[in-house]
Amino acid sequence: MDASKMNIVLVGAGNLATNLAMALQAQRYNIVQVFSRTEAAAHQLADQLGVPCTTRLTDLCTDADLYIYALTDEALPVVINNMPRTNGIHVHTAGSMPMHIFAEKQTNYGVFYPFQTCSKHKRVDFGDVPIFIEANNQQTADFLYNTANSISKNVYFANSEDRKYLHLSGVFANNFTNYLYTVAADLLAERHLPFAVLQPLIREGVGKLATLSPIEAQTGPAVRGDHSVMSEHLRLLADHPAWAQLYQTLSEAIERQHTTTH
Amino acid sequence: MDASKMNIVLVGAGNLATNLAMALQAQRYNIVQVFSRTEAAAHQLADQLGVPCTTRLTDLCTDADLYIYALTDEALPVVINNMPRTNGIHVHTAGSMPMHIFAEKQTNYGVFYPFQTCSKHKRVDFGDVPIFIEANNQQTADFLYNTANSISKNVYFANSEDRKYLHLSGVFANNFTNYLYTVAADLLAERHLPFAVLQPLIREGVGKLATLSPIEAQTGPAVRGDHSVMSEHLRLLADHPAWAQLYQTLSEAIERQHTTTH
Repeated sequence: MDASKMNIVLVGAGNLATNLAMALQAQRYNIVQVFSRTEAAAHQLADQLGVPCTTRLTDLCTDADLYIYALTDEALPVVINNMPRTNGIHVHTAGSMPMHIFAEKQTNYGVFYPFQTCSKHKRVDFGDVPIFIEANNQQTADFLYNTANSISKNVYFANSEDRKYLHLSGVFANNFTNYLYTVAADLLAERHLPFAVLQPLIREGVGKLATLSPIEAQTGPAVRGDHSVMSEHLRLLADHPAWAQLYQTLSEAIERQHTTTH
Repeated sequence: MDASKMNIVLVGAGNLATNLAMALQAQRYNIVQVFSRTEAAAHQLADQLGVPCTTRLTDLCTDADLYIYALTDEALPVVINNMPRTNGIHVHTAGSMPMHIFAEKQTNYGVFYPFQTCSKHKRVDFGDVPIFIEANNQQTADFLYNTANSISKNVYFANSEDRKYLHLSGVFANNFTNYLYTVAADLLAERHLPFAVLQPLIREGVGKLATLSPIEAQTGPAVRGDHSVMSEHLRLLADHPAWAQLYQTLSEAIERQHTTTH
């Protein structure tokens, strides 16, 4: 597959669209157009790529090989519904949306789900980011696999139900852990201590997971059953009933996990 | 301060004792003895350091400059209580124990609290690990500061109340986040997906905290108020009521945080 002969339209101009477009263009894929309903966003990404853009679906280039929809879950069905039918491959990038959302409108379609969080101002290196592919026919599957494989060495097939579980696991491992960091930061701030003092501990906690499973890596008062420390911690949280409740819930879950499985 | 003239006794032979002893010996501190109530543990660490060990407090070297107690919170008061009074400095390494636990038994004492999690089989580089110092007099404070500063560039003074908050923040940022990783791993295992697919997402989540505060770094369905994704996730968790409850608690906390503060 000669990447430079593959014409791609980006449907969306947000963080993921930007990062995917840059990565594909770097592999010499031919990005031919950017669509976004927001004119400023469309121009920003199109200028970065040096390609034309449009805010109207009626102006969309209809002979591209691949249309990548990187949109919010709310916008996705609306845009799909207003899209012209083309012979190209249409993929979305959403964790919790089924592939068959394209079924009534397109012939060749699928999903291209990079399992990563993207910020606009920090370029993502997709090199080891798992990309999960789904397709409605074999030719589409092959095309998507090769395209994903040009930017990542970790490409897998996953059906829509698997992908929902992936997304859900990401919410626990990324979104919810980040919330716990906000609580830790607030607790430190109460004593005028900077969040930075937690960085080595956080890095070590994540670093251990390279060699240990999370259940083997568990440390702390709950797994030791150290109730005197836990009572003292609950006392410190007396002014924060929601955090105290969370402390208790998580500690009990950890104790239960290690009494039943070890 | 000439490190090689400073004689140190390690009271305890667990993960933290081992890592601290190795780091101090590497800076040419003179470890003179290891005490542990467990003979095998005492010998293992003493052999690694090439120094004598004992399992009896009555055999303890009484003219050392520094006694580092790296013990469990349960063992600490018992050992302190049975320790001979010496002219040296006595410090413990516990997050949630007050400094004054030494007050009735020793003249010079304090706390030496490295804010890190230690495994026996993975050497900790203390270089950027914050070490929090407390002391009952200025001379002791100076000695402890210099000793800590020889193995870490991040040395702070913190009183016993601050230290409890540090420990508590570490429970949220390390122990509880690790529990969420176990949930994510179990969810993936149900679909025969390996935990490894989460690693790039986890690393990016932590990596963002180098430039963003945790509250700025928050992403996911809860912060977007995406109730259709959240309902679908709760449906997937129907067979795991405890995780469903946790999902709801954490999602509501995130939504509340971003409605009230932004």
